Amino acid sequence: MPYPDKRDSKDRLQLVLEVGQAFNSVIDIDRLLGLIADRTSGLLNSERCSIYVVDSERKTLWTKVAMGESKIEIPIYSGIAGAVVKTGLIINTADAYSDPRFNQEVDKRTGYCTRNMLSGPIINTSGEIIGVIQVLNRCQEDFDSTDEEMLGALSGFAGNALENALLYDELRRTFYSVVEVLAATIDAKHHYTAGHTARVAEYSCGIAIEVGLNSDEIEVIRIAAYLHDYGKIAIRDQVLTKPGRLTEEEFEEMKSHAAKTTAILSKMHFSKQYRDVPSIAGAHHEKYNGSGYPLRLDDGAIPLGARIMAVADVFDALTSDRDYRKASSYEDALALMRKENGSSFDPAVFKAFERYFEKKFGLGAS
Amino acid sequence: MPYPDKRDSKDRLQLVLEVGQAFNSVIDIDRLLGLIADRTSGLLNSERCSIYVVDSERKTLWTKVAMGESKIEIPIYSGIAGAVVKTGLIINTADAYSDPRFNQEVDKRTGYCTRNMLSGPIINTSGEIIGVIQVLNRCQEDFDSTDEEMLGALSGFAGNALENALLYDELRRTFYSVVEVLAATIDAKHHYTAGHTARVAEYSCGIAIEVGLNSDEIEVIRIAAYLHDYGKIAIRDQVLTKPGRLTEEEFEEMKSHAAKTTAILSKMHFSKQYRDVPSIAGAHHEKYNGSGYPLRLDDGAIPLGARIMAVADVFDALTSDRDYRKASSYEDALALMRKENGSSFDPAVFKAFERYFEKKFGLGAS
Repeated sequence: MPYPDKRDSKDRLQLVLEVGQAFNSVIDIDRLLGLIADRTSGLLNSERCSIYVVDSERKTLWTKVAMGESKIEIPIYSGIAGAVVKTGLIINTADAYSDPRFNQEVDKRTGYCTRNMLSGPIINTSGEIIGVIQVLNRCQEDFDSTDEEMLGALSGFAGNALENALLYDELRRTFYSVVEVLAATIDAKHHYTAGHTARVAEYSCGIAIEVGLNSDEIEVIRIAAYLHDYGKIAIRDQVLTKPGRLTEEEFEEMKSHAAKTTAILSKMHFSKQYRDVPSIAGAHHEKYNGSGYPLRLDDGAIPLGARIMAVADVFDALTSDRDYRKASSYEDALALMRKENGSSFDPAVFKAFERYFEKKFGLGAS
Repeated sequence: MPYPDKRDSKDRLQLVLEVGQAFNSVIDIDRLLGLIADRTSGLLNSERCSIYVVDSERKTLWTKVAMGESKIEIPIYSGIAGAVVKTGLIINTADAYSDPRFNQEVDKRTGYCTRNMLSGPIINTSGEIIGVIQVLNRCQEDFDSTDEEMLGALSGFAGNALENALLYDELRRTFYSVVEVLAATIDAKHHYTAGHTARVAEYSCGIAIEVGLNSDEIEVIRIAAYLHDYGKIAIRDQVLTKPGRLTEEEFEEMKSHAAKTTAILSKMHFSKQYRDVPSIAGAHHEKYNGSGYPLRLDDGAIPLGARIMAVADVFDALTSDRDYRKASSYEDALALMRKENGSSFDPAVFKAFERYFEKKFGLGAS
């Protein structure tokens, strides 16, 4: 929503400060990019705003804003955004299509028609250009020197906020990646087909979306899924990789991996958001009717994340080769699992799994 | 350094904005607390400023600022800071010692003499009180309503910045903790005494400090040290835990753990800061004279972090029990290692190790 077109410099300063300060209240990169774009285009009475982020290693600019969900990546010095990265100056383009630097490609891909455009650098506290902010199609008039001034002030605030968000995002990606790779080494020790944990994580998140969980809740399930079998590190190789049937004693040792997952993960410091990871991860063999292990929890006593993971884990086990049997087809696995709906599996979760299954594999769930 | 005592409201506003905006340029929690304290006491012409951070789970307030390095923790509702947490209001105390809420304990412990004090809440974007900012001993006069107004504005900026820094700090602690615990499971698989990786990390960081590395460089070495033996996950139990001497073939398998460490870690996404973790971690068996493994690197070709870790790793191995021998004393280990100074070990690193050794164990390095 556009702001009143304030030309009074005092009001304008106050608005810029208010909007700029709001940028620093968001650390999530996607939300921040959305917020900067939304508030800047509003303040400058324009239709759209795109934020390009510099990836100095890949020598590209990427953006998500104003283009929907998918990330667009362009060479770092291409188009008018690229000219801003090169010069560090604000560029005021009255008629985009008559400027030879203008990259018509993006309009072609998005169906948008750019008329005028104001572009400026986003600079971090070390003076490096970390992004470009581009405001498109000012209502009625072209962008003037007042707009340039406002964009200059706003991008100062954006620089701070974006740098923090990028750092946070990098750390989060590093964290996930460490969890993923270390967890995947468990797959390597076991005779499961490679990629078991990654697939259980993928299926669990897919089901969680169908259950209607929000993105923070799904993140917790993703981490828990990657770590659900970590207790297997404490199971002897001769049991873990035994080709034939396990003896009763060996099977008890094997089953102990679930409790060991919880025990190992409980030694970690998880921040508030991830607090429940150990109990969710260790409960993936609990059953809805209370006949699972290690704690024989039932129904509501089993964390929702674990009820979701239980379905994902069994589905991947059935659809992967084992030493003693071939993988089932997706449909056969689904049919087999239906028999345990309400006993092993939570019916509400199972319903969500069927919806996910249909979307994912494009097969009728009947 | 105090600012000129500006009473003109326009100048004041500008200074507050300038200082407040600077808060958002720092995401490291310790540096941020220092910056807020420094700039706020300067702007309010006072001697000191302490920032208390609310730990809502432990029901405490903690602070590092104005008390040197060590963290001070007090019950959440104690003292005048506690009264601010309870009421959410700014408290202007003209004479601390005549206010019964004032906690004289902190002055006693620090030898400081508080005269007057201005305390206000730090509030995050959800409206929660996440900290208290306390300015001590205004020069010449008591704090007045102008100071209260400035503190109110500044703590708004501080709230945003502090919330981001706390989130970042939590994520970083979670990341470390995951790395530590997963890495420690390797110790559990091996017949090393428990805690090998943690000790190698501790010794490596201690040596790195003596070498003169900065805190960012030391963080990299800490992570690499925790992960240095991770490649052992790919070594068979029967080799890893064999009680007697290894055959030549088994020894070759054992030695492969170093290259496997690099291979596994190379699959991870590390942010710029941690980019060298895989190559440092996997080079802890390289020797200064080029006779180590897996790459037979020598001298400067071995990353500095790995040269440090090599010393720490051998020192911990010698001073831990093995199946086939008892642990050496610290002095004996040092004497043994001296013989390899310049062949296995980098002399400059070894000198730093000797300084660390003397400080850590209080033993003469001669």
